[in-house]
Order: sequence, then structure tokens, then C-alpha cells
Amino acid sequence: MKDKKEENEYRLLSKISSSKDLKKLKEEDLPIVCEEIRAYLIEHLSENPGHFASSMGAVDLIVALHYVYDTPYDRLVWDVGHQAYAHKLLTGRKEKFKNHRTFGGISGFPSPLESECDTFMAGHAGNSISAGLGMAIADKLTPGNENRKTVAIIGDASISGGLAFEGLNNASNNPNDLLIILNDNDMSIDNNVGGLHGYLSDLTTSAGYNNLRNKMAIYLRKKGLLPESRRRALIRFGNSIKSLVSKKQNIFEGLNIRYFGPIDGHDVVKLVKVLRDIKDMHGPRLLHLYTTKGKGYQPAEEDPTIWHAPGKFDPDTGERILKDEKVHVPLWQEVFGQTILELANKDERVVGVTAAMPTGTSLNYLIDNLPERAFDVGISEGHAVTFAGGMAAAGKRPFVAIYSSFLQRAYDNIIHDVAIQGLPVTFCIDRAGLVGEDGVTHHGFFDLSYLACVPGLSIASPSDAQTLRNLMNTSLSMDSPLAIRYPRGKSNLYDSEEEMKVLVPGKGRITHKGHDAKVAILSIGPIIKNALEAAKKLTSEGLEVDIYDMIWMKPLDKELIKKIAETHPYIVTLEDGVLAGGFGSYVNDYVKELPYRVEVKNLGIPDEWIMHGSIPKLQEICGYDANGIENTIKQFLLNS
Amino acid sequence: MKDKKEENEYRLLSKISSSKDLKKLKEEDLPIVCEEIRAYLIEHLSENPGHFASSMGAVDLIVALHYVYDTPYDRLVWDVGHQAYAHKLLTGRKEKFKNHRTFGGISGFPSPLESECDTFMAGHAGNSISAGLGMAIADKLTPGNENRKTVAIIGDASISGGLAFEGLNNASNNPNDLLIILNDNDMSIDNNVGGLHGYLSDLTTSAGYNNLRNKMAIYLRKKGLLPESRRRALIRFGNSIKSLVSKKQNIFEGLNIRYFGPIDGHDVVKLVKVLRDIKDMHGPRLLHLYTTKGKGYQPAEEDPTIWHAPGKFDPDTGERILKDEKVHVPLWQEVFGQTILELANKDERVVGVTAAMPTGTSLNYLIDNLPERAFDVGISEGHAVTFAGGMAAAGKRPFVAIYSSFLQRAYDNIIHDVAIQGLPVTFCIDRAGLVGEDGVTHHGFFDLSYLACVPGLSIASPSDAQTLRNLMNTSLSMDSPLAIRYPRGKSNLYDSEEEMKVLVPGKGRITHKGHDAKVAILSIGPIIKNALEAAKKLTSEGLEVDIYDMIWMKPLDKELIKKIAETHPYIVTLEDGVLAGGFGSYVNDYVKELPYRVEVKNLGIPDEWIMHGSIPKLQEICGYDANGIENTIKQFLLNS
Repeated sequence: MKDKKEENEYRLLSKISSSKDLKKLKEEDLPIVCEEIRAYLIEHLSENPGHFASSMGAVDLIVALHYVYDTPYDRLVWDVGHQAYAHKLLTGRKEKFKNHRTFGGISGFPSPLESECDTFMAGHAGNSISAGLGMAIADKLTPGNENRKTVAIIGDASISGGLAFEGLNNASNNPNDLLIILNDNDMSIDNNVGGLHGYLSDLTTSAGYNNLRNKMAIYLRKKGLLPESRRRALIRFGNSIKSLVSKKQNIFEGLNIRYFGPIDGHDVVKLVKVLRDIKDMHGPRLLHLYTTKGKGYQPAEEDPTIWHAPGKFDPDTGERILKDEKVHVPLWQEVFGQTILELANKDERVVGVTAAMPTGTSLNYLIDNLPERAFDVGISEGHAVTFAGGMAAAGKRPFVAIYSSFLQRAYDNIIHDVAIQGLPVTFCIDRAGLVGEDGVTHHGFFDLSYLACVPGLSIASPSDAQTLRNLMNTSLSMDSPLAIRYPRGKSNLYDSEEEMKVLVPGKGRITHKGHDAKVAILSIGPIIKNALEAAKKLTSEGLEVDIYDMIWMKPLDKELIKKIAETHPYIVTLEDGVLAGGFGSYVNDYVKELPYRVEVKNLGIPDEWIMHGSIPKLQEICGYDANGIENTIKQFLLNS
Repeated sequence: MKDKKEENEYRLLSKISSSKDLKKLKEEDLPIVCEEIRAYLIEHLSENPGHFASSMGAVDLIVALHYVYDTPYDRLVWDVGHQAYAHKLLTGRKEKFKNHRTFGGISGFPSPLESECDTFMAGHAGNSISAGLGMAIADKLTPGNENRKTVAIIGDASISGGLAFEGLNNASNNPNDLLIILNDNDMSIDNNVGGLHGYLSDLTTSAGYNNLRNKMAIYLRKKGLLPESRRRALIRFGNSIKSLVSKKQNIFEGLNIRYFGPIDGHDVVKLVKVLRDIKDMHGPRLLHLYTTKGKGYQPAEEDPTIWHAPGKFDPDTGERILKDEKVHVPLWQEVFGQTILELANKDERVVGVTAAMPTGTSLNYLIDNLPERAFDVGISEGHAVTFAGGMAAAGKRPFVAIYSSFLQRAYDNIIHDVAIQGLPVTFCIDRAGLVGEDGVTHHGFFDLSYLACVPGLSIASPSDAQTLRNLMNTSLSMDSPLAIRYPRGKSNLYDSEEEMKVLVPGKGRITHKGHDAKVAILSIGPIIKNALEAAKKLTSEGLEVDIYDMIWMKPLDKELIKKIAETHPYIVTLEDGVLAGGFGSYVNDYVKELPYRVEVKNLGIPDEWIMHGSIPKLQEICGYDANGIENTIKQFLLNS
């Protein structure tokens, strides 16, 4: 019944499971396919939320690509893959899409682990050019693959990152036919020069013109009239004209990448024509498209930021279905946002830095109120940290708010540009631990391990909102760097009037005292709530446990651990991060130096990749939900 | 006596200890200062080696900068600081320079830990723009500092990296007067257009012209004749002309950074004039200089690669003083270089990637013999790894050779673009562990810790050359990524005819068997030689020890460790890396799960920054030279 309905509503789409199916259609049918995909996205994303606006904007491009290229033989390499839903729908994943991002379902991002049509992981921005270049060059070296095509599709935000630039900068070093498509959804087409643009775009992308240019070049060279230097000059001359016409310097051609465009990325028929024209050209090329985020759904077109990931909504009215909140429990990021503004108002040295996540980290509180002291540097995590290092060297107190998994991009910057110099930069590491539906590329579970080995860098994680505020405040009286990690989601209610304290670095505290307990849980961060829940159940069964909120991983509260080890034969460590080299491992290293016989069990994320699903589900799998903790402790007590 | 001699030879230089002293000289004396500095560098670097060619090339620029700017109030931010020796000489470190890079002496790189004239750490390339921008913007926000100047000096190699691009891309976002100096020593001045270049350079850098342009703009805006859009168009128009003239796209102006140059970076008087002209301009600017590596010392000018860090040499003849080697014991890097070539000849899938270190990693063996399968991507470690991931996804077997401390730049790429996808990339991590004289920014001591937490990534370190060859060969039969780390310096003689074996991942071996030994040393990597040396001494005193070469950190040879723990009450772990989260820590985590009472002592690098000095000296400080190992074991045996 439902299937019948789908067939009617999605007359063309329902018959497409691959690039081959799509190719059976006529060109004039393609706009209908695009329309159906958009309707499908609206229908299903309104129920099972995901990344909406960018996916809507890339529909026409994706249809054109699968129509022109022989995927999966030809390779499409996505960048920040949350634009690529239409690609999933066209490659046999329509049904699975209905429960995408849920546990056991398909991922929200392209993933080679899921489909051969997804050629590369696309969770972190800016990697498509480098990865695509690797494929394109590999094909040139592989007999039989010389004409296999690779297309990297990158957005205008991603291309501003250093990795993308490194890819562009290397694109012309070795023989390859990589096509880079710049899906530019930030600017509208410049109407002043639209006509001329269109003309030039038609001219330079037409295979005929290109052939002519190549033939002329070959002819001139044969006649000895075109030495290499002249040939290049000729190309440069062409570029300069285009540069003048487009009224700006063309960075791509400066890097020896042929530039085509800009053209309208929503005219699917035109796109097909242009792609056909440039498909068989040789050498690295870039096609510049203008698209509109949220295209085809007016509410999203009007406010693409909110509609980036809008949650559930009413497809007919465009009204977002927000959870009814009697009392607003602030998100961790909101506590950060409110606190940095408060600190900035009190202390002139305070500045804030984020890398393209002003809303996601809530740095926008500072941006809105003290714009000259807030810096959104775009998708440039490395620069964000080194820039903060520079500001700290000049006397400022920068707070750098970056998601844990993206901070991996800035690892060397943390070490070389901050920690070695002992500069007082505060890293506010958002989305630490399991993040849930965004899955494997977005979990922030390595930070404790990769940071704890860096000398002179303090590391803390608050278990409640007020402690986050206290930690941020404490960093202002430290003269060395501090990393504060907190997760995605809700924190707890707090009194915004309560004065912020200065904490003593490396001091933990007891949070739950059992009666003559033999087991102690040493917890770091908000995950302590699982321990408290477990304790409640255990107590109801007459089993006792003490719970310590360690707050600091570095310095570790050795004094406290020593006392605990003296009186507790069993210790459980608990963290929302990988066990390998994590908090528990550091506790082990210390406990082994003590003269007491203590059994330590470490709870956290095991040494395997954890995919997507709800956070409670994933915690359960990893064995550190309340049940997992309870069972661990029971095993201790039963064996003793 | 010596001092008197110096005074005569270095008539002007001997009187300069700061920017203030330099300013007392007349402009026409500056070329003499440059000459004296070069003589001083030749005299001292021929005895106590360092980075020669780039330092010689930057002399005139450095003299001009300190002559024009009020350092250290005005900030000079160096990039890849081994060009900055002249800066050290001019800022009160002439005497200390004589034993630079030795233990307790000054560093070979600019270091804020050493002098307030060194504003930022400059060991890893490409950070100067971001750091300088941070300072320049911070000054704008600091009352009284609005006119403080910041100059970032970057080389043409460094500027190709992603971090530098991120810095450039953000340079015009916020008010600042950062001057970026591009010290370009790779190209010679283009003679064809030299005259016109000179003219334009004079024109656009003269403060007069600039004033006129600004005044005109202000006038027009006041009259309502220059809306923002027109003003930008005006600037763009100017840029386009310059772009046409310079016959290439000007990337900097495309990023809204005013471009000046190129000019001759060895004409110190001209440099002073140009710097004065552009010093007080507002907004981010870039001055492009052409310089010659090794300038002023002919042998170095002729072969700047060898003279990058030539070791000791005869200052008169330019003959390098090479150590007399009866038998050439290959460097670790040479074993890598020979082996990858051998593997590439046998297996068509093999390709090699390096990031600007073809000589340093010996990838040049492959480059020279199979150039189409070897890729030097420049100072772009992130791209190197993601590019390798792309090639692996297309069926190749990439070996990525990068120094350990620089690989920190590619941390997220290792995780996101290789490990999550399980792509068979082999990381050949050179310069792992303590590197000696290059010091704190170059030690490769974090790699085991930051890699071991990544699921699915195997990690090994060979103790001899043949094992390195075997490991590289083994990686070809694995279908997941492998990291192989090896240090700077000599490996051991090996038989290049010996067939390479396929090792079993996660299998260690015994290397030295004592008689009924109670102590076992578990070692990873070439550092085992310290253990063997310690064992020799211990045996001579009647003390017994077993030594195991674990080879693999991941997978860890748990079976072997279990056997060892069963029979040895004392275990010493040994690694050339940080203890925090390192090999020893992983052994601890496993040993605590075993039912035996074992005391484990971990030897490696403690949780503090280790500066420069000879490797044996630094190992001694860290307590894992042969003596340190011997003492640790004696303490065990005495306490038992």
C-alpha cells in the first residue's frame, strides 16, 4: 500500500537505484527527478531529521553527475558529506534512508564502509581534493584505468581550509584529470556581469572551443612557434582576461587549475551539458557553481542557518517541531557561550575564537555582544589555534571553542604553537565523547589520549554547568594552557548569579558516599551521572559504592587517589572517551606505583570504531551506561 | 686576545647587541654589517654546524628589519627559524651563538623561552602568519599598542602549506597592520620584466603614492562618489593590472592582501627604503623578496641543498669535513629509501609520498628511479596523508615518509582519511624519539601515544635494519594501515641480498637470555641497544636480565607478556618516546589484568619538555641510557 503510494508520488525516482537507471531517462525528465528527490527529502527529513538545507541545495548537481558519469566506476568524492543525501537516494539506498543516522541504519555521511558508491569518508571538511587527486593520479598509473574519471565536490566553506588549499596547490604537479566542483552556496550570482559571465562560461566550457584551443596549440608547437614558455603565457593571458572580467583575482588559475564558471547549479539540464563538455578534458579543472542552500523549500531558503539541521518539522507549514520545554535546561555549549561573554565583560584580555562553528559552539553570544573580540576563522582549526597562540603571546586570554573531533586538525598547533611556549590559551572542547547520530567521524573520543601526553597542558572536564563556569574562570588565573572538554547536549540548571570560583588545579571531590564502601568509582566529566544512577540501583540492593568526581585528568589528583586506594580494594574508572591512553590508563599508571593491592577496572570506549546511533545506545554497547557500571561493580563484589 | 681579534675583524658587529645599537649606524654602513655577519656565520658554523644556506640568504633582510623597526617592541615573527641566525647575532646572542644547539646552549631556532626578541616558536613551518596576525590584532585591541608593528617573515616553501594559507585567508577579516615578508629563495628575478617590476614596485610602495590613493579615496567617499562596492572595484582594478604585468595571477591580492614587489632581498639599502615606505601603511600587506640561499658563500650558492645543513667545513676552501667511514653503516632513512625502491620494483602498487623531505627521508631513491611513483607534495603533511588515503582507496600501496614531529600536522588525516576506512597506508615515521640538536620542536616523542589510541592502526618499531625491511614488506600483505617508526641516525649493517620476510603482526622475540633472570626488559625499537649495553655490565657483575624486542606496540604481544609476567617478578619497559600514554603504559594496562604479582617500571621520556643537546646526553637526562637502565634494574634486585 505504502509502496504503491510511493510509486505514484515518486514516479521516476522509484525506478532509480543506480546511475544506469538514471541514464535511461531523457534529459528533459531530469528536472522532475530533482523535484521528486526534493519532495522525498522533505517527506523523510521532516520525520527523521538530518542535514536539510545543504542537501536540498545539491540535488540538481547530484542528478547531473550520476547522469553524465558512470558511477561507481567513475568516482565521486564528497566533501562534508551532509550535502550528499540525493546521492544516497540515487545509489540504491532510498529505503534505508528512511532510518538513516539511527543505530544499525545507514550513516548520515558518505561512507565507503556502506557503499562502493561512496568512495571516501566525508565527515571532516576539505579532504575531497586531496583524496580525489590521489585517486585520479593512481588511475593514471594503473593500466586500464587511464580514462576512469574522478570528481571531487567541495563547498565554498570547505575550500577555505588549509587541507583543501594543499590539495589545490598540488593538483597540477602530476598528470591527472581531476575535476573539482566548487558548490558555492554562500554568494548569489553577480547580476551586474551575469550576461558576460554566461557568455564566457559557455565559451570556455564548450568542448568545441577547447578543442580549437588545443588544436591551435598543437599546430603552433609543431611549427616550432609555441615553446613551452609561450604556451603558458598564452594560458595566463586567457586567465588574466577572465580575471578582469570576473572582477577578482582567480586564485585557481594562479595555481594552474583551469577555471570554468560560475554557472547556476540549479539548472540541471545546463549542468549536464557543461559536465559533458568538460568531462573528457585533460588536466585538473575546477567548475564553479552557484547554488542556494535549502533550494526548493522556501522556509529553508530564507533561513539556511536554522535549516542546516532543523530537527523534525511540519512539511506543509515549515513549522519546526520543537520539544516542549517547561524549564530551559541549557546546553553545555550555551553555558560556555554565556560564560565567555560574562568573563569578557569583566576581563579585557578575554577573546574568543571558533572555526566555522559560531552557532554550534555558542560563541555567537560573544560575537553578538563584543564582535571585535570574537573571531570566527572559518574551517581552519589549525589557524584558529596558532592565531590564539599569537594573541596569547601579545597578552590576550583566548578561549578557543572547537569540536573535539575537529580539534584533531590542530594537534600540532596545540603542541608547537601553544604548549611548548606555555601560552595561556583555553581550549573549550565541545562535542567531546560520543556524539550520537553524526557517528564515527564526529565522535570526540580521542582528545584525552592525544592531549594528555603533551607536557604543561592541563586537562579538565566538568560534571556540571557551574563547574564548567568555574573552570573557565580558573583558566584566567593560570599562566599555562588548559583544555576543558564537555559533551554535546544538555548540562543542568544553574544559578547564573552564583559567583564563579577559582578552582585548585588537580583537585577532585567526592560526590556520593556509600556506607563503608569497598568500591570507588573515579569519574571524569558529565558521564558521572551514569555512575550516580548505577549507585542508586546498587544501594537499593544493599551494595555500597563511593563516587569521586575527579574533574582534572591533568594534574591528576594523586593525593586523593592514594587515599582512595588505601581504603578501597576495588576501583572503577569511568570516562566518555577511548580507554587507550585515556583517563583510566593514567589512573592505572599511578595506582601501580602505590603500595596497596587494588584491582582497577577501566570503563570507557574500547579499541574499535563506534558507529552512529543514540548516545544511550552507544554507551550501552561500550558498557558504560548505568547498567554496565552496575554489572562491573557487582562482578567485583561477587568475586571478592 | 680573542676578544681583541673579534673586535678588529667584526668592527661594526662587535658593537651591536640590539636594534638600538644598529640604528646608530649610517645607512651606508649596513652592507658592511651584512658582510661581517656573513663572515661570522662562516667562521662559527664551519666549526659548530647548523643551518647554513638559508641563514646566509636572510642576512640583509634581518639587518634591514632591525634597522627600521624598534625591536623587540615591534615584533618579528620568524617562520622555520633556521634562517634567523643573524637575528640572534643582532639581539645580544653573539657569544652564545658559538655553542648554539649544544646542551645548555641557545637553540638553533628562535625561541621565546630564550629571548624576548623571539616572539614565537619557529620550528615547524608555516605558523608565522597566523601567529603574527594574532599579535597584530591583539595590539589593535590593546590601548596604547595600536601602533605597535608586527612583521611575519615566511619562506616560499612554508607559504605553500595549509596553515599559512589559512593565515593568509584570514588576514583581511579584522583590522590589523600585519606586514608579511615573503622571503622567496627558489626563483631568480624575472629579467624580462625586471625594469617594469622595479618601476611598479617603487611606485606602489612609496608612501607618497599610497597617501595620494588613500586621500583620493577619502575625498571621493566624502563627496558620496565612492560607495563601498566602487571602492573595492577600484582596488581590484589596480590588482588586475599588476596581475597582468607580473604575468601571473596574484594570489595574495585575491585574498585582499596588498602585494608589493618582487624586489631584490640582498640590497640592504633598498630594503630599508622599502620597509620605511610601507611600515606605517594600514591593513595587511605582503612584501615579496627574491633572495639566494647561501648568499655570499659561493659553494653554498651553487649547491644550496647540500649546504642547507652542511656539517663542519673548511671556511677557506668550502670543503665539507666528513667523518671518515671505513664501512658505511646506513642511516635508518637510507634503509627505508633502498627498501621502498626494492619493493616498488617488485610490486606495481607501491608508491611513495613525502612532504618536502625527499633528501631527509631518502625518498629520493624512489624519486630518482621511478619518478612517476614518488610524490613530494611540499610542506603539506595533511595533504600527504589524505592524498595517500586516496591512492590507497584506488588500489595503490602508499608509503608515507614523514618526520615524527611533523606528522603531528596530519593527525586528523591519519584518523579520518586512513584509519576509519582501514586503508592500507604505511606510515614510515622518521626522526622518531629524541632527535638531539634540533631540540624541543623537532623531537618525535609523541607518536606512540597519539597513534596507539586509533583503532585498526598497527604500530611497530624495528630494532635493526633487516626488521625495518621486513616490516615494510609485511605491510604489503596487510589490508589495514601500519605505522613504522625509526629514529634519526645510523642503523646497522645488513645484507641487502637477504630476502625480506613477512612478519606476524604482534609477535615479539627474545634478544638476550640471562641465567634464571628475575628481571625482564620489554623494549620497542632501536633503543634496545641501551638495554643490551646495560645487560653486559650487569652480567659482568653477576646480575641477570632477559631482554625482549617487542617490535610491535599494536597489536601488543600479550601471549609473550603473559609468559614473561609468569616467570619474572620485575619488568622494565623501555621506549624512546614519552611515557604518558606510551608503550610502557600499554604494557601496564595489560599486566594489571594478569593474575601475577609483577612490579613494572617504565623507562622513557618524562612529562616535561626536553630541550636540545646530543642524543646520549638527553637520554641520560631522561634516565634511559645504559646507565639509567642498569640502575633501575639494580634497584629492583637490591630491593628484592
